Amino acid sequence: MAHDLLILAGDGIGPEVMGEVKKVVGWFNANGMDFAVEEDLVGGCAYDAHGQAVSDATMDKALKADAVLLGAVGGPKWDKVPYEVRPEAGLLRLRKDLELFANLRPAKCFDALADFSSLKRELVEGLDILIVRELTGGVYFGEPKEIRDLGNGQKRAIDTQVYDTYEIDRIASVAFELARVRDNRVCSMEKRNVMRSGVLWHDVVEEVHKARYSDVQLNHMLADAGGMQLVRRPKQFDVIVTDNLFGDMLSDVAAMLTGSLGMLPSASLGAPDAATGRRKALYEPVHGSAPDIAGKGLANPIACILSFAMALRYSFEAGEAADRLERAVEQVLAQGVRTADLIGPEGGAPASTVQMGDAIVAALEGN
Amino acid sequence: MAHDLLILAGDGIGPEVMGEVKKVVGWFNANGMDFAVEEDLVGGCAYDAHGQAVSDATMDKALKADAVLLGAVGGPKWDKVPYEVRPEAGLLRLRKDLELFANLRPAKCFDALADFSSLKRELVEGLDILIVRELTGGVYFGEPKEIRDLGNGQKRAIDTQVYDTYEIDRIASVAFELARVRDNRVCSMEKRNVMRSGVLWHDVVEEVHKARYSDVQLNHMLADAGGMQLVRRPKQFDVIVTDNLFGDMLSDVAAMLTGSLGMLPSASLGAPDAATGRRKALYEPVHGSAPDIAGKGLANPIACILSFAMALRYSFEAGEAADRLERAVEQVLAQGVRTADLIGPEGGAPASTVQMGDAIVAALEGN
Ligand SMILES: CC(C)[C@H](C(=O)O)[C@@H](O)C(=O)O
Ligand SMILES: CC(C)[C@H](C(=O)O)[C@@H](O)C(=O)O
Repeated sequence: MAHDLLILAGDGIGPEVMGEVKKVVGWFNANGMDFAVEEDLVGGCAYDAHGQAVSDATMDKALKADAVLLGAVGGPKWDKVPYEVRPEAGLLRLRKDLELFANLRPAKCFDALADFSSLKRELVEGLDILIVRELTGGVYFGEPKEIRDLGNGQKRAIDTQVYDTYEIDRIASVAFELARVRDNRVCSMEKRNVMRSGVLWHDVVEEVHKARYSDVQLNHMLADAGGMQLVRRPKQFDVIVTDNLFGDMLSDVAAMLTGSLGMLPSASLGAPDAATGRRKALYEPVHGSAPDIAGKGLANPIACILSFAMALRYSFEAGEAADRLERAVEQVLAQGVRTADLIGPEGGAPASTVQMGDAIVAALEGN
Repeated sequence: MAHDLLILAGDGIGPEVMGEVKKVVGWFNANGMDFAVEEDLVGGCAYDAHGQAVSDATMDKALKADAVLLGAVGGPKWDKVPYEVRPEAGLLRLRKDLELFANLRPAKCFDALADFSSLKRELVEGLDILIVRELTGGVYFGEPKEIRDLGNGQKRAIDTQVYDTYEIDRIASVAFELARVRDNRVCSMEKRNVMRSGVLWHDVVEEVHKARYSDVQLNHMLADAGGMQLVRRPKQFDVIVTDNLFGDMLSDVAAMLTGSLGMLPSASLGAPDAATGRRKALYEPVHGSAPDIAGKGLANPIACILSFAMALRYSFEAGEAADRLERAVEQVLAQGVRTADLIGPEGGAPASTVQMGDAIVAALEGN
């Protein structure tokens, strides 16, 4: 039976990088796999088409798909649209309505690119961190979330950070499970010295650890100290588990350490279905829509292609295919193929988005 | 008339580093200035003494003092004390009750220490950023802030981020004022794509800029992208203005860039008094209480000494004295005096806390 893949390329460089992913999907279809691809709109382009950052019809497709691949959303063009229908609202609705509570953000440093990091080479060479970010709770979704007019020219803005025990339990469990197939270490980050949600977070992670994962090494760090340690000695970490907002900040810092934002994929997973064991899932690059370079053939498609590799691994039990795709990417990098973002001071002619995609598809043959 | 200085050395390495500050104060007293020093407790030691992280009597003294110097609070010894009286609560009460809404955190890279940064030397050499962090609002103090028992073994933790127009207005004004005597550039950071408080923050900063500071260059960045840019190209920033929680995270990341957390001071300022023009103020190092090295004579007193330099500048209109103290620190570093945290792979014998303090006092003579 075909795997249903819903592609939401989105805005900015989204459609360009997704074009290369479609080639990769095509290669796997020509080599024994069976993906049925459907495409639809999300973000600013969806707003332009029907005044919504993601339509109900698109949501229906997303709910039914085996996996969603998303490019990127947003851009200055939509800076003035109403808050409820801004491009990001489409992404947030997808995460929330698909209940994709577990956001996996690997920060891996590619050997061929270690010199691109702003950190000293020895600090990032071989870096392999996995940030597990809670994605459907916290300050992103808590109510009240509003701006009140107080009169006298004063307004009051309110956002609410809310976490329930079960939300922390399930994300901690994901982190521990993933640690077991990695280096078996989890660091949990919060601000329990200031936030009540940090206190609950800390305590629930402790309980889950004691009850079910005491074989995994666990430590706790305040999120500010965690940000510091990421910059200071990133290789001390294996799996980091943290809430939605801290995860947003910390994963961006971690991404930067690798020197190549254009390389980093992510997976957002729901709970396994009780009957089928299937998880809802959305895969997307960590980078944004980069409106400044959109349409110029400059974008690096690797983050989006590696997001598809994560889909192969987590949604389609095709770990070998995922390995093959990742090897193809490494080979192309080792051959010196570079999009503009990967050209260092020594210079050289950049490959276009399309050339990079073609090189990866060609490398799939040999791997 | 004597300047009233309240010293709250706190926990861990606090008393040690403050011992060196007292020598520096003594030197200025012997050279024409007039500080009347009083000492009291804050943090874990205050809890041990009277079951409160800061007593009402201490608060009275703090309200009357011309400036408060704080060492550091907290440590594992107090991990299990009730939330309301944990060591950090003392610091938070001081900030809140003195209305110290403006937290100034310079991240300056000392030439002699540029190789200590985990970033490549050329990226941090000459780095001079000022983070202006809102300190009495946001998620640190908003209500509700509680853990509710929902039954069924479930708890719900809630923290509330609240910002009113006037709070954003006044911190933005501080940032613009400070930018004018620096490189005249302000970058404001929030998450307006996710948080209503980010929207209000952005809009009020824009209005303040337009109404009163249009001579200053202003740009906006999402806080996650801001964290990334701090790691990627820190020298692009002059003044960064941001909320309490983002400021906590971003200033720690920025601090780490300089390579030497033991070097970084901070100032927390209130509004100028309508009658006297005097601002309430608290000065403290950015580093924590470092319980692991407390009592061993290993701590670097420079951050605390430079916090006193900020006091000279911002509370006592003694800019020349502040310059002199800062030059003394630079000279001692240039001479190669190093506490243990500043010893690189090349090794060398570390100076103790006391030796570093003595060297700085000696250098004051010549500067
Ligand atoms: C686009 C934005 C809403 C989003 C977030 O804040 O989660 C992005 O920064 C991310 O990290 O995926
Ligand atoms: C100790 C803690 C309460 C404090 C904070 O979170 O503000 C510290 O991290 C700081 O940055 O001064």
